Amino acid sequence: MEDHVTPRRVVIIGGGFAGLFAARALRHAPVAVTLVDRRAHHLFQPLLYQCASGILSEGQIAQPLRAVLRRHQNVRCLLADATDVDVKARLVHARRPEGGSVAVPYDDLIVAVGMRQSYFGHDEFAAHAPGMKTLDDALEIRRRLYRAFEMAESATDAEERRQWLTFALVGGGPTGVELAGQIREIAGHTLDREFRTIDPLQARVLLFEGSDKVLGPFGEPLAGRAARTLRDLGVELRLGTRVTDLDAHGLTVKDNEGTTTRYAARTVLWTAGVEAPPIAAALARATGATQDRAGRIAVEPDLTVPGHPEIRVVGDVMGLHRLPGLAEVAMQTGAYAGRAVRHSVEGRAKKPKPFKYIDLGSAAYICRGRAVVKAGPLHLSGVSGWLAWLFIHIAFLTGFRSRLGAVLSWSVSFASGARRERAFTLPDTANPPERPHGAPAVSPQR
Amino acid sequence: MEDHVTPRRVVIIGGGFAGLFAARALRHAPVAVTLVDRRAHHLFQPLLYQCASGILSEGQIAQPLRAVLRRHQNVRCLLADATDVDVKARLVHARRPEGGSVAVPYDDLIVAVGMRQSYFGHDEFAAHAPGMKTLDDALEIRRRLYRAFEMAESATDAEERRQWLTFALVGGGPTGVELAGQIREIAGHTLDREFRTIDPLQARVLLFEGSDKVLGPFGEPLAGRAARTLRDLGVELRLGTRVTDLDAHGLTVKDNEGTTTRYAARTVLWTAGVEAPPIAAALARATGATQDRAGRIAVEPDLTVPGHPEIRVVGDVMGLHRLPGLAEVAMQTGAYAGRAVRHSVEGRAKKPKPFKYIDLGSAAYICRGRAVVKAGPLHLSGVSGWLAWLFIHIAFLTGFRSRLGAVLSWSVSFASGARRERAFTLPDTANPPERPHGAPAVSPQR
Repeated sequence: MEDHVTPRRVVIIGGGFAGLFAARALRHAPVAVTLVDRRAHHLFQPLLYQCASGILSEGQIAQPLRAVLRRHQNVRCLLADATDVDVKARLVHARRPEGGSVAVPYDDLIVAVGMRQSYFGHDEFAAHAPGMKTLDDALEIRRRLYRAFEMAESATDAEERRQWLTFALVGGGPTGVELAGQIREIAGHTLDREFRTIDPLQARVLLFEGSDKVLGPFGEPLAGRAARTLRDLGVELRLGTRVTDLDAHGLTVKDNEGTTTRYAARTVLWTAGVEAPPIAAALARATGATQDRAGRIAVEPDLTVPGHPEIRVVGDVMGLHRLPGLAEVAMQTGAYAGRAVRHSVEGRAKKPKPFKYIDLGSAAYICRGRAVVKAGPLHLSGVSGWLAWLFIHIAFLTGFRSRLGAVLSWSVSFASGARRERAFTLPDTANPPERPHGAPAVSPQR
Repeated sequence: MEDHVTPRRVVIIGGGFAGLFAARALRHAPVAVTLVDRRAHHLFQPLLYQCASGILSEGQIAQPLRAVLRRHQNVRCLLADATDVDVKARLVHARRPEGGSVAVPYDDLIVAVGMRQSYFGHDEFAAHAPGMKTLDDALEIRRRLYRAFEMAESATDAEERRQWLTFALVGGGPTGVELAGQIREIAGHTLDREFRTIDPLQARVLLFEGSDKVLGPFGEPLAGRAARTLRDLGVELRLGTRVTDLDAHGLTVKDNEGTTTRYAARTVLWTAGVEAPPIAAALARATGATQDRAGRIAVEPDLTVPGHPEIRVVGDVMGLHRLPGLAEVAMQTGAYAGRAVRHSVEGRAKKPKPFKYIDLGSAAYICRGRAVVKAGPLHLSGVSGWLAWLFIHIAFLTGFRSRLGAVLSWSVSFASGARRERAFTLPDTANPPERPHGAPAVSPQR
């Protein structure tokens, strides 16, 4: 009477690509899955910059986890922030948003908590330079981008106006490159003819990168072509620079020769690094697993934590083979872990094959009509790269109800430069807030 | 050489329907218009509840003012919070969001600042019961509505679960009625099959109203029909009640017999009253104009402030004839004031005819397939009211790029119950915010 046996309890922490794909791989397994996430939505992170820049709405890139998984009868979603793992009692401890905590028992644990923005020990930078990891971050960046042009328009002092029209981006990876392109497009295309005092095209976009190239992992010739496209677009690259100081009025960088330069900029956005959230350290403490410098957890070739075959780590926070923090890696590791649990439940005695990443390539959007795509021996840039980007993203959005909406939003934006989602909220300056509220802060947390 | 004369300076405070229609009426006038607003967007307020309930995105109901007015070459938009009017020097003083203030000179002033939520002297209620006047309010309500179901799902205590599944609405006007209908629809339709522990349909919706009917201004038979439709939908009406206390766990009301009742509810929304923003009192002080109890400014039949033919008050904050706070009144008074300025600039000596409101009717949406519409002798309810509502709103959205988007969103929502814009943000509980940030608070300010 197998039906009457309590099903094996699988807890998945994190509803990003890794967690979602793990849950999906368990769909037809006789298990009881609890998906714990501190956000109620699954975020389509590769398009987060388009939410920040006003092309897409929150709902177009963030679907409620329980809506995505509504047909998965064996999955229960729990909105709570996992704070600790008790590996002896096999319990995940989590805090509920409005107070109170829960302990969720597991037989198998899949840790898919992702990475959060890192300020390399300078957490005080976060207040002046939001990162780009969460929906909050995207809304904060949207607010700062469009507010900067408003402030420049109303500035009576020329120097202040210049500062509002200077945008500094720290980090030359895909997100930094994408945001740089977006700001130049907003300035040259979206805001065209809307201002009376300023010319939005005067907006300076500075991109700071520690290494000697943008999009380094794409290799040559793509990295070089991306740099050329960015320069053609009017983005000023400052390669081989490291940020030493940062405040509300600008930042100071040091270059490879040791020269220090100060840049006045009222908008600074940070995409330079990632670090593991606190729950990763808690897991490492509890299991004795080692973490790399960024906090990624070292795992066995089958993604289990050494000595804990019941705990698997997947996605960005998983430290195997120094794999890049890509959606594709998260999906493949998540699905692998889900399948491994299913096979184990189904009693397949054979030890699973080690996880092997199938590199399907990577893509970075630069601007309308320009993207770089690397897929095996294939190196695409310019218009062909952009068409490949478009095809990939429409294909990947499949299954989300918002695909039609995104395609419509892109059509309008690509054709006319108009961006529908430009509305932003502002704190009340005349009557400053004095009450508690539910709105989030800019913070470096995952 | 008329071209070399400095054009007459018109300052409009407020970019709602009244301010926008005033600016539009001045499009071809030889004037220099400055539109001052503390928000960068024009809000399509009649559909704000649909943004709160997850049908529409922010961008679908809020367009940047400068995008709406981009072709109005004589209009300059200024993001600043008007704090005072110097009627002698003819200056509007305003505060810019990131510090600094500006003084904007005018020859003609059009005051279109609208009304904000009033808590009838109990501003401390605002922290526990957001109003429904701004985009911030809508996002806060969206967060609270969907979070409540999440909290109910994860609650381990039956009483706590009941409290999360109890929604209290204060105010039986169109906004309160619309929100009540939305919550029952979300519970019965949108969230269908998404939860494992709770049945969302168990959600209680209580609607508190001080008078003896909902939608009183619609008169009979519509008010009675609306009440019946709400009851059929499962909304519990508590008529003739006044809120005497309110906190994070519920509210206490007193009925007409003097009986006091406590209701436990973790979600309380407030739509009960409005009051003029502080700038209205500043204007009254400066001009000697009188204000009614809610702060509306008394004006002459031509909408000018007594003794100040250069200052016109329009929209909700205008106190003439006790006109209702409807978009239609705002549009008509705004357009009237704009035309009056244009005629005066064009040198038409004739005194303008007094403002006369043409009542085109009013509408309130209750739920899918049910609305009430009153237009002159025409009283529509049920499906015919709903079709009229749909027609009116599609017609009014004309000119907004988002009309197609709204129609698509409505089609999906009406057909399947699905709502795309359910994503909400949450503060960080594990690492509570400690830094300054730009996110707004729940507050009773306009």
